[in-house]
Amino acid sequence: MLEKTVLVIRELDPQECAKVLSGSNLGRLSCVRDNFPYTVPISYVHENNWLYSFTLEGQKVEWMRENPNVCVLVDEISDSREWRTVLVEGRFEEFPQSSDWARYGHAWSFLQSRSYTWWLPGGVKRQLAEGSTKYVFYGVRIVTVTGRQALSGPV
Amino acid sequence: MLEKTVLVIRELDPQECAKVLSGSNLGRLSCVRDNFPYTVPISYVHENNWLYSFTLEGQKVEWMRENPNVCVLVDEISDSREWRTVLVEGRFEEFPQSSDWARYGHAWSFLQSRSYTWWLPGGVKRQLAEGSTKYVFYGVRIVTVTGRQALSGPV
Repeated sequence: MLEKTVLVIRELDPQECAKVLSGSNLGRLSCVRDNFPYTVPISYVHENNWLYSFTLEGQKVEWMRENPNVCVLVDEISDSREWRTVLVEGRFEEFPQSSDWARYGHAWSFLQSRSYTWWLPGGVKRQLAEGSTKYVFYGVRIVTVTGRQALSGPV
Repeated sequence: MLEKTVLVIRELDPQECAKVLSGSNLGRLSCVRDNFPYTVPISYVHENNWLYSFTLEGQKVEWMRENPNVCVLVDEISDSREWRTVLVEGRFEEFPQSSDWARYGHAWSFLQSRSYTWWLPGGVKRQLAEGSTKYVFYGVRIVTVTGRQALSGPV
């Protein structure tokens, strides 16, 4: 027998948004050039008012250097009756190679850890540990964060 | 015992990209206003050179009407050793309420089906079936599509 259900969509409060951001490491980052968007999956660490990440030099970094306005979507779409989406609107900031990355503390340590770098080829991990200049350590400073949640239950 | 593996990242050809697009209904759509990006999950149907979708009036639609340059990211991140990402760059086109939606054939039928509308509240589904003007039927005409795949295996 099919059960009748009702689906309710509600806004997440800032604490709930922060929990979603901290509970995941996978987001979809979007940047813009000449009013065209570009979106890629990223692996990140959420700490305080930042999402920290690493990337290779490439289109995304070029675009973000020119226009630091980015957004990061983090969603949990567990099944048809339950999903949460959080959208971070923020500013790209690059942490130069010459600066002391260790001062980023936990975020820096985590970004070097196995659980973060699973998606990187082995050679990249080694170069990352050695501080090769091909890699860009950056943060998205959170300007606004909004979220929505779908909940369902019996009518 | 840990097995040594090597991770290889390769480009997907157009046929492989099309297969990823057709094999999913979940994408992340990005649009742009004043050089700021906005990204949301969407449910879509891929047919020929289009991604078809429905949405409610709102920020996304306002932005896309002003600037039809959008992108849609479709990714399959199954585990640490295997992922595929496909990025569609395309143009938003709205199918007006007055036009004969049935001419969109399979896409229109599917968009009305249970497997597509699972994420919509029941009331919305009814209004959708009745052709309420609150809903926007649109397509993203694919201009370019690119994709990458990570594969891993023993060294």
